[in-house]
Amino acid sequence: MRDVHALEPTRSRLGLREVGVSGVRKPLSVRRPGGAVTLHAEFSVHVDLPASRKGSDLSRNAEILAEIVDATALRPVASLEEACRAIARELLLRHSYAHRTRVDARADHFLPRGVTPGRRSFEDFLLLADARAQREEDGSLSAESYSVGAEALGMTACPCAMETARARLEEEFPLLKDPSLASLPIVSHNQRNRTTLLFGFTEPAEVEAEEIVAAIEEAQSSPTYAILKRGDEAGVVLAAHRNPKFVEDVLRDLLTSVPRKFPSLPDSTIVRASTRSEESIHKYDVTASHEASFRELRRGLGT
Amino acid sequence: MRDVHALEPTRSRLGLREVGVSGVRKPLSVRRPGGAVTLHAEFSVHVDLPASRKGSDLSRNAEILAEIVDATALRPVASLEEACRAIARELLLRHSYAHRTRVDARADHFLPRGVTPGRRSFEDFLLLADARAQREEDGSLSAESYSVGAEALGMTACPCAMETARARLEEEFPLLKDPSLASLPIVSHNQRNRTTLLFGFTEPAEVEAEEIVAAIEEAQSSPTYAILKRGDEAGVVLAAHRNPKFVEDVLRDLLTSVPRKFPSLPDSTIVRASTRSEESIHKYDVTASHEASFRELRRGLGT
Amino acid sequence: MRDVHALEPTRSRLGLREVGVSGVRKPLSVRRPGGAVTLHAEFSVHVDLPASRKGSDLSRNAEILAEIVDATALRPVASLEEACRAIARELLLRHSYAHRTRVDARADHFLPRGVTPGRRSFEDFLLLADARAQREEDGSLSAESYSVGAEALGMTACPCAMETARARLEEEFPLLKDPSLASLPIVSHNQRNRTTLLFGFTEPAEVEAEEIVAAIEEAQSSPTYAILKRGDEAGVVLAAHRNPKFVEDVLRDLLTSVPRKFPSLPDSTIVRASTRSEESIHKYDVTASHEASFRELRRGLGT
Amino acid sequence: MRDVHALEPTRSRLGLREVGVSGVRKPLSVRRPGGAVTLHAEFSVHVDLPASRKGSDLSRNAEILAEIVDATALRPVASLEEACRAIARELLLRHSYAHRTRVDARADHFLPRGVTPGRRSFEDFLLLADARAQREEDGSLSAESYSVGAEALGMTACPCAMETARARLEEEFPLLKDPSLASLPIVSHNQRNRTTLLFGFTEPAEVEAEEIVAAIEEAQSSPTYAILKRGDEAGVVLAAHRNPKFVEDVLRDLLTSVPRKFPSLPDSTIVRASTRSEESIHKYDVTASHEASFRELRRGLGT
Repeated sequence: MRDVHALEPTRSRLGLREVGVSGVRKPLSVRRPGGAVTLHAEFSVHVDLPASRKGSDLSRNAEILAEIVDATALRPVASLEEACRAIARELLLRHSYAHRTRVDARADHFLPRGVTPGRRSFEDFLLLADARAQREEDGSLSAESYSVGAEALGMTACPCAMETARARLEEEFPLLKDPSLASLPIVSHNQRNRTTLLFGFTEPAEVEAEEIVAAIEEAQSSPTYAILKRGDEAGVVLAAHRNPKFVEDVLRDLLTSVPRKFPSLPDSTIVRASTRSEESIHKYDVTASHEASFRELRRGLGT
Repeated sequence: MRDVHALEPTRSRLGLREVGVSGVRKPLSVRRPGGAVTLHAEFSVHVDLPASRKGSDLSRNAEILAEIVDATALRPVASLEEACRAIARELLLRHSYAHRTRVDARADHFLPRGVTPGRRSFEDFLLLADARAQREEDGSLSAESYSVGAEALGMTACPCAMETARARLEEEFPLLKDPSLASLPIVSHNQRNRTTLLFGFTEPAEVEAEEIVAAIEEAQSSPTYAILKRGDEAGVVLAAHRNPKFVEDVLRDLLTSVPRKFPSLPDSTIVRASTRSEESIHKYDVTASHEASFRELRRGLGT
Repeated sequence: MRDVHALEPTRSRLGLREVGVSGVRKPLSVRRPGGAVTLHAEFSVHVDLPASRKGSDLSRNAEILAEIVDATALRPVASLEEACRAIARELLLRHSYAHRTRVDARADHFLPRGVTPGRRSFEDFLLLADARAQREEDGSLSAESYSVGAEALGMTACPCAMETARARLEEEFPLLKDPSLASLPIVSHNQRNRTTLLFGFTEPAEVEAEEIVAAIEEAQSSPTYAILKRGDEAGVVLAAHRNPKFVEDVLRDLLTSVPRKFPSLPDSTIVRASTRSEESIHKYDVTASHEASFRELRRGLGT
Repeated sequence: MRDVHALEPTRSRLGLREVGVSGVRKPLSVRRPGGAVTLHAEFSVHVDLPASRKGSDLSRNAEILAEIVDATALRPVASLEEACRAIARELLLRHSYAHRTRVDARADHFLPRGVTPGRRSFEDFLLLADARAQREEDGSLSAESYSVGAEALGMTACPCAMETARARLEEEFPLLKDPSLASLPIVSHNQRNRTTLLFGFTEPAEVEAEEIVAAIEEAQSSPTYAILKRGDEAGVVLAAHRNPKFVEDVLRDLLTSVPRKFPSLPDSTIVRASTRSEESIHKYDVTASHEASFRELRRGLGT
C-alpha cells in the first residue's frame, strides 16, 4: 500500500510553513505543591512541510499527544509548558522531514480565591503555553523557545469618568468640595477586565502560573470573587474606585511590575501582555497590548 | 431513481418532532419608514416527520428560504416575523406529510443612538422572531403563532452595593451624613446588561422592533452609547447610579411597562423576558427570566 | 445595614420565575470505578422570586456551589447529576422565600477510545445534567426531578447521495452493475455528527454517563477516533459507508435502542435526543430532535 | 476640567504598542457593479501611545468610525479595505501623539451560488481587511499598508483514505481491479473545509473580494451549495471524490494559482493563506497555513 503522504506533490511544489492538528482536547496531570492536579488542556501541534512531500504524517501528531499527555495520568508532568516542550521535541523526531515545529496549549485552571479565608472558593483562570523547536543543519534539535502565561478576569474602574463625575457633582453638591471629602471615592463606570500575561523564553526558566495570575490581579483595579456577602461587595467596589485604572494603566502597571515580581528571569525574556475592558458604558470593548523584553523593562524603556 | 427519503424507515418506526436545517444565513430586505433596510438574518426551519417516512425533504427547506428571503432583495418584506410566517406556511405546503412547522430567526439590526443628536451613530441590536404553523385534520393550515422580539445591551448599577458602600463611607467621611448629600450618587459596581424581550402572538398583531428595543433600554439603569466625549461619560455614569437596578428590577420594570407601552396588543399576548448582568465584581453572570401573558400583566399579577 | 434584597419591590410587584447565577465554573471530583476523576463543570443555578421581595440572595448560590462542589476535592460525589440534586435541595433550604429551583450543569469528560487497544487515547465528550426541586404547601421539599445525559461527536454518511451516486456511476461504469459489486460501498457525503441524549427522571434511577455515550456512538454511522493510522482510516470510512444514516436514522436508531440498552429505567423516564450534522456539502447544518417517554418507546409509538 | 488622558502617567512610564476599541459593529455600504450593498462589518481600531501620555483619546476612535462608516449609508465606499485605509489615516490625524495605527475589519458578504442558474441562492462568505499607517519623522503620513481577503467554506475529500479504502475493497471485490473501473471514485472521508486567503499590499492595488472567494472555491475539492436536489448531491459528491485533496493540496493549489488568477498584482504582494478541515473521522481539526510573496510564488519557490 502506497504512503500517499510521502509521495511527491503532483500539482504544485511549495514548502508549507505549518501543517498540523488543532483543537485536540486532553486531560493533563501536572505536579503541584499539594499533589497532582488535572488540567483540561487543548492542544494545536504543527510542523512545516518540505516542497518534496505531498502530505504531513498527521497521525503521528495524534500519537505523540496521546503518548505524552495521556501518560501524565500515571506520571504527572511538571507543567503545561513542559508538556508543550516535550511534544515539540518529539514532533521533530518523528517528522524526519520537518525543520520547525510549534505547539500551542491552553488549559482551564482553578485557584482558591476569597476576600477572607472563610469566603474562599475555587475560581477559574486560563493557562497558556507554547513551544517551538527547530532542527539545525547538522540534524541536531536546537533553537528551542517556549512561552508560559495566564489570563485572569478582574475589574477596572475608569479614572476619567470619575474625575468628570466629581466636577459635575461638586456643582450640584457644593459640600463635596469640603477638604474632608477630597478622597471620597466618586462614581465611575467599572467593568470586567480580561488580562493576559505571557513570558517567552529561549532558555529554560522557572516561573509559576500562580504567580503570573497574581501579577495580573494586582495590576487590575481589583480582583473579583465568586463569594461576596453584602459587606464584601462594598469592600471590592471601594477598593476598585480607590484604584481607578484605564486599560493603559493596567498594562503599564503590569509590565513595570514584572521585573520586580520575577527577579530571576533573564534579560532575554520577552513579555507579551494584553488587556480587554468589557466596557459597561459602551457595547464594544477597549483593548491594549504591548510586547517588551525584560532588558527593556529593567531599563525602564519598554518601547 | 428511488426517492430514498420517501421510503419507509427500515430499522425503526418512530415519528420525529422536528427535522430541519439550521444556521442558514441570508440577507433580508425589510421595509422601514425611511426605505428598505437589509438585515443579515440566520434561519432555522423545521417540520415534523411521520413514522411512515424515512427522511424529510430538506432541499425544500433550502429552496423555500431562497425563494422567500432572496426575493426580498427586489420586494422587501414588512418585517423579520413576516418572513418567518411566510416560510412556516410554505413549509407545510411543500412538506405534505408534515403536521407542524417551526421557523426561528435572528438578525443584526442597527439603530441610531447618541446622548445628543450630534453624537448619534449606528449601534447594533439583535432582532428575534419565530413562527409556527400546524395542519388541521381537514388539511387546512391553522393554529399559527409567532413571536417578535429584540435584545439590547445597556448598563446596570447595583443598588445593594451602593447602599452598603454608603454605610462604609459614612463611617470614614462623617460629613457624608449631611442632609444636603442625601441624594449624592454613591459608588457601586456597574456592568454590561443584556436583556431580551419577546412577544408571542396567536393572531396577527402590530409591533415595531424599534419600540421593543426602546422598552428594554428604558428598563436598564442606562442605555450605553458608542460615542461618549468626556462630559458625556459622567452623564451616563450619573444617570445609571441615580437609577440603580438589580436584574430583578430590570425584569420587573420591563414587564410592568409593556402594557402601557404596547396598549394595542391583545390580552393573549405572551411576554417572555430575560436579562443577564455580566457582573463586574464576579467572573460569572447573574440572570433572571420570566414569562407572563398581557392579561396577567394588566391585572398586575404575573405569576 | 438594611438588607436591600429583602425589601419590598418599590416600582413593580411581580413574582419572577427564575433569578440566579450562570457560568460558574468549578472542578468537580466524581467517583468512577478506577478512582476519582475531576470534571471541569459549569453550573447555572436559579430560584424563583416572590412578588413580595426585591431581590434574590445570590451570594447564597455562590456559597452553596462552593460548599458542595469544592468539597468534592476531598470527598468525590457519585456523579454530576448527584451534585446537581444536592445543590437544588440546598438552594430551596437557604432561599426560604423560594418555591422552585433549577440547576443546570455541563462538564467535559474524557474517555479512552481507539480502533484497537494499541490505538487507544483519551477523547472528549460532554456530560449534561440538571435538577429541579419544588417546595410543597406544607413546606416539605418534593417533586424533585433531574436529568442526566451526554453529547458525543461521531460521523454520518448520507444514504441518499450514496444511492444517487451509484445510479450515476452505473451509467459511467456499467461493470458496477455486476452482482458481485452489489454491496460495494459507494461514495457519499459524510461529516461530523453531534448527538445529545438525555434521560429525565422523577424518581432516583441509575444510569452511567459512559453508557449514554456508548449508545450515541452506536447510533451514528461510525464513531470517530483521535489516532487513525492509514489502514485504520479506511476501516472507519468503510464502516460508515456500510452504515449510511440520515439524521433521522441516527435519532430513530438511538431512541429505539434505549429501552433495550437501559432495561432497568422506569416507564416514566423521559428521553430527549437531538442530533446535528455539520454537512460537508452545505454551509449550514441539518438537525433533528425528539422527546418521548420510555413507556412510549417500549410500546414502539413515540409520537 | 482636566483631560485625564493627556496627563503624564503617574505610576509607570512606558510607551504602549496598541490601545484601541474592539468589536465595533456597523453597517457599511459598498459600491458593487449592480448597485450598493450593505455589509455588516466589525471593526477594531488602535493607535500606539507614547510614554509621556496617560491615556489614548478613545472617543475619537468611535467618532471616526461613526463619521466614515455611517456616512457610507449616503455615499457608499469602494470596498471594505478602502474604509479601513480611510479610518487608519484619520486615526493618525486626530491622535496627534500617535505614530502608528492599525485597523482590522471583517464583514459578512453574500454571493449568489448554485449548481445551475435555477438553483442559485445567496450564500454567506466572510470578507477580511486591515490597514496600517505610520507617521514619519517629518510628520507626514506614510508607510501605509493594507490587506484584503476572504474566507469561504467548501468541501474536501481525503486522497489517502481513498487509496487505502480501494486496496481494502479490491481484496473484498476482486472485480474492482478490472481496468474499466480504474477511475471509479472510491469512498473516503470528506468534510467541511474553511479556507482564508489574504493579499497584503504596500501600494494601492486592485483586487475584487469576489475573485478571492472564487480562487478559494476552486482550490477546494468542491464548493458547497445551499440548494441541492437529489441528483445535484451526487454531482457534488462525485466532483469532490474526483478531486481529492489534503489540506496541504488545498493550500498549495491555492497559492500556486494566485499569480495566474491575479496577474496584475505586484511582486511585493504578500499572500497569507490558511485552511482548516473539520475532519469527519476525527473530533479535532486539521489545519495548514503559509505566507509568501508574489515574487516567491512567481518564481515557484514559496519557502
